[in-house]
Amino acid sequence: MMYSIKSTELRQGAIHLKKIQAGIIGATGYAGAELLRLLLTHPDVEVAAISSVSFEHQAMEAVYPNFASTCGLILCGEDEVIEKSDVVFASLPHGLSELIAEKCVGQGKYLIDLGADFRLEKPEDYQEWYQLSYQKPELHKLCAYVIPELHRSLAKGCKIIANPGCYPTSIGLGLAPILQSGKADPTTIIIDSKSGVTGAGRGLTLTSHYPECNEAFSPYKIAQHRHTPEIEQTLSAIAGTEVKVTFVPHLLPVNRGIVSTIYLSLTEMLTEEELHQMYEDFYQEEQFVRILPPGKAANLKNVKYSNYCDISLHTDERTGRLIIVSTIDNMVKGAAGQAIQNMNLLFGLEEGTGLNLIPPAF
Amino acid sequence: MMYSIKSTELRQGAIHLKKIQAGIIGATGYAGAELLRLLLTHPDVEVAAISSVSFEHQAMEAVYPNFASTCGLILCGEDEVIEKSDVVFASLPHGLSELIAEKCVGQGKYLIDLGADFRLEKPEDYQEWYQLSYQKPELHKLCAYVIPELHRSLAKGCKIIANPGCYPTSIGLGLAPILQSGKADPTTIIIDSKSGVTGAGRGLTLTSHYPECNEAFSPYKIAQHRHTPEIEQTLSAIAGTEVKVTFVPHLLPVNRGIVSTIYLSLTEMLTEEELHQMYEDFYQEEQFVRILPPGKAANLKNVKYSNYCDISLHTDERTGRLIIVSTIDNMVKGAAGQAIQNMNLLFGLEEGTGLNLIPPAF
Amino acid sequence: MMYSIKSTELRQGAIHLKKIQAGIIGATGYAGAELLRLLLTHPDVEVAAISSVSFEHQAMEAVYPNFASTCGLILCGEDEVIEKSDVVFASLPHGLSELIAEKCVGQGKYLIDLGADFRLEKPEDYQEWYQLSYQKPELHKLCAYVIPELHRSLAKGCKIIANPGCYPTSIGLGLAPILQSGKADPTTIIIDSKSGVTGAGRGLTLTSHYPECNEAFSPYKIAQHRHTPEIEQTLSAIAGTEVKVTFVPHLLPVNRGIVSTIYLSLTEMLTEEELHQMYEDFYQEEQFVRILPPGKAANLKNVKYSNYCDISLHTDERTGRLIIVSTIDNMVKGAAGQAIQNMNLLFGLEEGTGLNLIPPAF
Amino acid sequence: MMYSIKSTELRQGAIHLKKIQAGIIGATGYAGAELLRLLLTHPDVEVAAISSVSFEHQAMEAVYPNFASTCGLILCGEDEVIEKSDVVFASLPHGLSELIAEKCVGQGKYLIDLGADFRLEKPEDYQEWYQLSYQKPELHKLCAYVIPELHRSLAKGCKIIANPGCYPTSIGLGLAPILQSGKADPTTIIIDSKSGVTGAGRGLTLTSHYPECNEAFSPYKIAQHRHTPEIEQTLSAIAGTEVKVTFVPHLLPVNRGIVSTIYLSLTEMLTEEELHQMYEDFYQEEQFVRILPPGKAANLKNVKYSNYCDISLHTDERTGRLIIVSTIDNMVKGAAGQAIQNMNLLFGLEEGTGLNLIPPAF
Repeated sequence: MMYSIKSTELRQGAIHLKKIQAGIIGATGYAGAELLRLLLTHPDVEVAAISSVSFEHQAMEAVYPNFASTCGLILCGEDEVIEKSDVVFASLPHGLSELIAEKCVGQGKYLIDLGADFRLEKPEDYQEWYQLSYQKPELHKLCAYVIPELHRSLAKGCKIIANPGCYPTSIGLGLAPILQSGKADPTTIIIDSKSGVTGAGRGLTLTSHYPECNEAFSPYKIAQHRHTPEIEQTLSAIAGTEVKVTFVPHLLPVNRGIVSTIYLSLTEMLTEEELHQMYEDFYQEEQFVRILPPGKAANLKNVKYSNYCDISLHTDERTGRLIIVSTIDNMVKGAAGQAIQNMNLLFGLEEGTGLNLIPPAF
Repeated sequence: MMYSIKSTELRQGAIHLKKIQAGIIGATGYAGAELLRLLLTHPDVEVAAISSVSFEHQAMEAVYPNFASTCGLILCGEDEVIEKSDVVFASLPHGLSELIAEKCVGQGKYLIDLGADFRLEKPEDYQEWYQLSYQKPELHKLCAYVIPELHRSLAKGCKIIANPGCYPTSIGLGLAPILQSGKADPTTIIIDSKSGVTGAGRGLTLTSHYPECNEAFSPYKIAQHRHTPEIEQTLSAIAGTEVKVTFVPHLLPVNRGIVSTIYLSLTEMLTEEELHQMYEDFYQEEQFVRILPPGKAANLKNVKYSNYCDISLHTDERTGRLIIVSTIDNMVKGAAGQAIQNMNLLFGLEEGTGLNLIPPAF
Repeated sequence: MMYSIKSTELRQGAIHLKKIQAGIIGATGYAGAELLRLLLTHPDVEVAAISSVSFEHQAMEAVYPNFASTCGLILCGEDEVIEKSDVVFASLPHGLSELIAEKCVGQGKYLIDLGADFRLEKPEDYQEWYQLSYQKPELHKLCAYVIPELHRSLAKGCKIIANPGCYPTSIGLGLAPILQSGKADPTTIIIDSKSGVTGAGRGLTLTSHYPECNEAFSPYKIAQHRHTPEIEQTLSAIAGTEVKVTFVPHLLPVNRGIVSTIYLSLTEMLTEEELHQMYEDFYQEEQFVRILPPGKAANLKNVKYSNYCDISLHTDERTGRLIIVSTIDNMVKGAAGQAIQNMNLLFGLEEGTGLNLIPPAF
Repeated sequence: MMYSIKSTELRQGAIHLKKIQAGIIGATGYAGAELLRLLLTHPDVEVAAISSVSFEHQAMEAVYPNFASTCGLILCGEDEVIEKSDVVFASLPHGLSELIAEKCVGQGKYLIDLGADFRLEKPEDYQEWYQLSYQKPELHKLCAYVIPELHRSLAKGCKIIANPGCYPTSIGLGLAPILQSGKADPTTIIIDSKSGVTGAGRGLTLTSHYPECNEAFSPYKIAQHRHTPEIEQTLSAIAGTEVKVTFVPHLLPVNRGIVSTIYLSLTEMLTEEELHQMYEDFYQEEQFVRILPPGKAANLKNVKYSNYCDISLHTDERTGRLIIVSTIDNMVKGAAGQAIQNMNLLFGLEEGTGLNLIPPAF
């Protein structure tokens, strides 16, 4: 693959011949805007084109004034994005990505889909949870669902990457080591997640209206959230058995971040030190997963604006349960950052390129 | 009892001869200040005296300017409070209330203790979780722990009321009907609670420093919070068997309110309508518990600044679990409001007197 | 007037024969909902009917679940409200109130208009700032614009009260004493106001979308806000000369409250103590205006959820300027509370009836 | 100067022989921590050592867990920092920097002082506003106060840079063009500033206690803030006459950011387009100042986490006043970012090196 050669050279300090041309379809949604921000400072990427249905022909900085002086791009249509790009990022409501995927594949472009249309392997899951059918099953064979830390090898040779959802990323990373160890009972998993309001997107709803969600807190889509089958797909693959979870998301009055508090029963009692070691071992090669020292609890403030996933491990000896706290920035590791990580993977770049983001202290 | 006669007269519209003289020890803590606010508009109460160790001799309005023009009281010492009061409310760190209780009982005054010193029935629990021993066991015989909706009858004849903790109130009310029904497995209870920052008090800590808890979220005292034995004491009594729970509190970036999301396995599948009916029946006489219609989720914004507990019931049919969402204002139903409810109970007043607080929409 | 007689009796402890029947047109906007909340606990009022165009035929508690168990009213149409009420409160976008006023007057009902349609005395001001003409000039003769502390006497004999805007209330109260004293230069007034997000209403806009206004701050409608002529009308009447001000509002990331920081040049240097005395004298009979002691600054947290206006006075001796900080709850003293104060005035009730709201400390 | 030569080579793509060794004294305060975060990704800097009195010998990541995996430094003493560094950043309470400056100069190190001790040119101003005297007047001759956009040339040959305060930076940049033009009256300047809570530092105070500043808003140090003489020093130099201002800061319930709303009278009426052009011309070479198009208002959310200063210009034609809105991130352009900009200037690096921070949209 041409790019992986180039990227090797890059890593060896060779002269940079040509940057990866990247495009964003749906650049004015929150995930799209965050992706743009990160791609603009990626050393090996040039943002070739960005599109928006609602704001076509407008300057990005007119829609998002934070981009003034940093991005002169005008929003165009999706076909222009595909044409100009080596890799296309799509950040769209579900049901729209197959068509884009078909065009990308037809023109030999890579697609990284931040939406839900390629995430579920079983068409019946997609049907059940999204009430839609896959129209182009052959495209799904060119695709892999990739949380890099868990599925890196699957990306090889793919043309399409299904970029994981925010909740499933925090949960998959939080549960993988213990499920793989076989030392916990996968039938007992309960996940209580809390997400910042950007997770609900830029579309205007009463739920996201400031006076309605400030000084407020509530769960939503209780045991009915569409990320459930995606979570179970990841966990089942790791556990080697079909896993069903109870998953309850809550809307948290902050802009960014997800905290998933995960409960399950240990089948063999482990100390927090042993658990810490298990997780350190599992993630020892990973630059974006940080296992907190025993006694400390993960806090979303420590991962905000970064691609990190912080995980802390706690036992309730009185009940034999393990409590895992896993936190990410829903817009970075839970969306745009992970998409770039996947792009780096696809193009053979060092996986953290452009993601050297130290979380601010406040 | 003199007051219950008077209160009966009151309810019948008779002339009000003498108001209950109420005092607050620890009036400059958050619970104390909230209690003062509510007592000042209670129609049958006169606030006789308020004390503070840190601010003795200062005007309350100098410490809390919100009280300007509404409360001319000067903070005094605790002995003066006891002397001037018919009923004393103590809102103090643990370890200090037995001495106050002794004085109150000695002078024939009622004590409603908002602290933890009288909550646990078993001295060994107090020893284990608070590392302190009961010094005056005889006082504890004069005391009842009272969430009115669950323990109303126990208040009769008591001189001391142990006012329940905020988390245990939300959890006890949320679980009582299902545990009493015997249709759920009490060994499976997991409680994921989230509390506003006033729950941590007015004492300065880095945890409550604005830039550290704004745009942040984290659990704390995971499976180690001191409310755990109090929760288990209430649940065990209802379930008729020793109940152990996993309890994980989180700090929520709002001023007020607690949401407890509670998980347990049903031993018999019930629909949300059946659960709704069970809870409506259980609480049919209760003015402060609101069971939400099926399909709606409890939100702390709807109970803020009120004495309500809102409860919503949800099933996860895929896993056979029941999910209960119970929310209160930690400072009202979780502290000051419930203390007044208990006072009304002690003095034979209509239980909601002075608590006619409609939660604001925002 | 029948009601003033009755209210006199009320104040003398006479038996309450019949409560005032009050109705709200536009009950599902933020001001309407707050008004409902306050009227429901007003001792001399029964809420007869409430209307909403968007939610007609729905239960209020279905739209605002905070009202569960406290208000069983179903939203109806505006004609039903007028018919059932002695006094109608209208909380509507501008341009709609004249028609309602005509109906009210025709049926002998009082109207308290929380909107802008009756606030400006000069039709040309209404034309200039609202781009609309008065259609029924005769109705405006039956109306008075009333900040009770400044215009109480004007309410006498009126059928319609123009309830003042939130910003003008904070500003009028803040400036009245110094302007009346003649010791400041009215050509130098600059007003920098900050308002909580409820001031922008319940309508969905990007400006009020949580991720856009949380952790954000900005002025809006700079020197162009429609409250400007209303402010100037009040100030000119007090100063006895035409006053023009520079008025800049800002959107503050809180739910409630307005802080107006007001700057003007003193024509005669005064100490903060002298200013304090001047303001205390001016407002000595007023229960809802609190002048802070010299050295303290007004803070919106101390007036939230109450009908108070807190004012603090500061001098900049280096430049000869006076700085006035005036804060109210925009939804109470700035809307619903002041409307009730005006109703009390109209009906001869003690002006603070139903407004005995102690601001919470947090 | 050795470093400027090297940096020239750098800019020409030459091989980087040795990075600038930078140290931070006071690294665990908010400004220090932010500085560390930015320096860690500066391409030409190596952080040599960091110190803290309170946390000496602890790992930075133990104090600030956001730094886990990104900074392995252990906090040491200040002498070690000076010894190991080419340039020392000091972020300390006032009164402590002269001693450090003396050591730095003695060892041939540069000092960039983020505190107040070198900002005021006139010793009598320092005496009046800080109640302290300069102990080492000779050190002040080696120092320049540098907002780079206004005072760049003064940095030449200096050993010590007084890094400007947050408020003065937003205000100096906002007023410089109009004051220099002579088209406004410098005696009429009123500045109403609002700052996020990080501006108050990490020290625990009731003012910064979450429940006290969340859902609250108030001015503080009204017309008495210590940044006043610093503001006037900058403005007087630009205006060519002694300028006195009325300056009122407010505490804003956000973590970061300052908005200064500045009022002054125009001596000659200008349109917003003319003002826009004047400011564009003045800042045409500046990469960190963005003048908003006429009709748009500056918002702190668009500069958060970046080194930008956004300025918008508005006229009140009715009163002949100009209103300038100037916003920065108090921790970046108002502290750490500007300090790095000054370091780049001292060492001859391109001024924006390491400051390529695109503000996030949320």
